[in-house]
Amino acid sequence: MSQEYHCRIYVTLRPSVLDPAGVAVQSGLHQLGYEGVEKVRIGKYIELTMMAHDKTHAETQLDEMCDRLLANPVIENYCYEITALETTGSPK
Amino acid sequence: MSQEYHCRIYVTLRPSVLDPAGVAVQSGLHQLGYEGVEKVRIGKYIELTMMAHDKTHAETQLDEMCDRLLANPVIENYCYEITALETTGSPK
Repeated sequence: MSQEYHCRIYVTLRPSVLDPAGVAVQSGLHQLGYEGVEKVRIGKYIELTMMAHDKTHAETQLDEMCDRLLANPVIENYCYEITALETTGSPK
Repeated sequence: MSQEYHCRIYVTLRPSVLDPAGVAVQSGLHQLGYEGVEKVRIGKYIELTMMAHDKTHAETQLDEMCDRLLANPVIENYCYEITALETTGSPK
């Protein structure tokens, strides 16, 4: 029986990769007066729901999806959180 | 005495706002064979460090930064997590 999972995926640039967008945002924040802000890095945050047999299956699928489409493994890292959604209605 | 804080900021489109990038990613995942994926939404994930007097001061600053630069309050929501960084070296 399949179960629905809610997934939150965080994709970040590897620490060794330059982040021009982060530099631009940091500069903007400094110009607005927030001088104490440093080390700004911009990443992606992806939310989705998926059907899977169990949590291990969901993790396997999610790893594949990140490697193939959601992240660029050459320059990006990713991590995720998976939560099983409550099923309402008909009994399983 | 100022304390350094590590902040993780999540900026997401409001639920009522269309997300064409999310639709495109969902379509891509379906084409790769991940048929069970739905409700894909793409947001931003921002990491930064900042100096602040205390956690309340950090939160106030962060709210301002989000409203003024990091998020567009008309179409986006944001939330954040703040962690105090360990200070090493000289005693305070």
